[in-house]
Amino acid sequence: MMEQVPGALGTSASLALRLGQTIFSSASLLFMCLDVEFYSYTSFSYLVTIMGLVTPWSVSLALVDAYSVFIKGLPRQPKILLIVIVGDWALSFLSLAAACSTASVTSLLVNVGTSFCPSKLCSRYQLSAAMAFLSWFLSLASTLFNLWLLPSL
Amino acid sequence: MMEQVPGALGTSASLALRLGQTIFSSASLLFMCLDVEFYSYTSFSYLVTIMGLVTPWSVSLALVDAYSVFIKGLPRQPKILLIVIVGDWALSFLSLAAACSTASVTSLLVNVGTSFCPSKLCSRYQLSAAMAFLSWFLSLASTLFNLWLLPSL
Repeated sequence: MMEQVPGALGTSASLALRLGQTIFSSASLLFMCLDVEFYSYTSFSYLVTIMGLVTPWSVSLALVDAYSVFIKGLPRQPKILLIVIVGDWALSFLSLAAACSTASVTSLLVNVGTSFCPSKLCSRYQLSAAMAFLSWFLSLASTLFNLWLLPSL
Repeated sequence: MMEQVPGALGTSASLALRLGQTIFSSASLLFMCLDVEFYSYTSFSYLVTIMGLVTPWSVSLALVDAYSVFIKGLPRQPKILLIVIVGDWALSFLSLAAACSTASVTSLLVNVGTSFCPSKLCSRYQLSAAMAFLSWFLSLASTLFNLWLLPSL
């Protein structure tokens, strides 16, 4: 009999966390990409790269969770769980770094003046950074829940 | 008989980690503070705030480790260890955020032009960000070593 840790891989709480990550990271990607010359700033390209990694990762784990919740419980293997934990952990650090860089560059651009950043664009950058922060927070939560489960396997 | 995990609180490896954190965080602080108007940029003020927290934290834990190594081994209590882990963990996230913000703002200032940042100042900002990254890395290592010890107590 396996313990059911809420939020660990294969539970409905984990599905909710993954869906949240998917939504926030793709929102961050869209706010930054659509109609914006994001590649002129290093931090913005970095944010796009990282969010482009986080989105497919979250989508695929959300699919695994959905399968496990709605169709058939999958057996948990420590090796797979370890890969998921390490992946989440690395991506959460990377998305924190990307969110911080974007937020600080945006704040600098706002202060320097409107020639670098028309007000409509700047608020989109800020929204994108906020979404990246939320996505970081959720993937950190996933890491911790899975890490909690690991010793019991 | 207590297990000796290298790098956990009270060992000589931990003392080395703490000394490294002290050196890197105070170097980051000095590069940023001395003769620079750091308060005109939000990220730089943030870096100074965080490094001003990391330095006394590392110094005090280095003193605890030095006492424990050279004079008398202190008994390890789970509560104190938990406080140290949580503190290290929070400070490592904060210093990663500060290092990323500083690095990205510096890179932006370098690209925008020399009117915002004479080349001598810019290289100091970069050095400060690099030191903050090293300090982040060492405090993450401390967190992980202590976390490894926690279940055995």
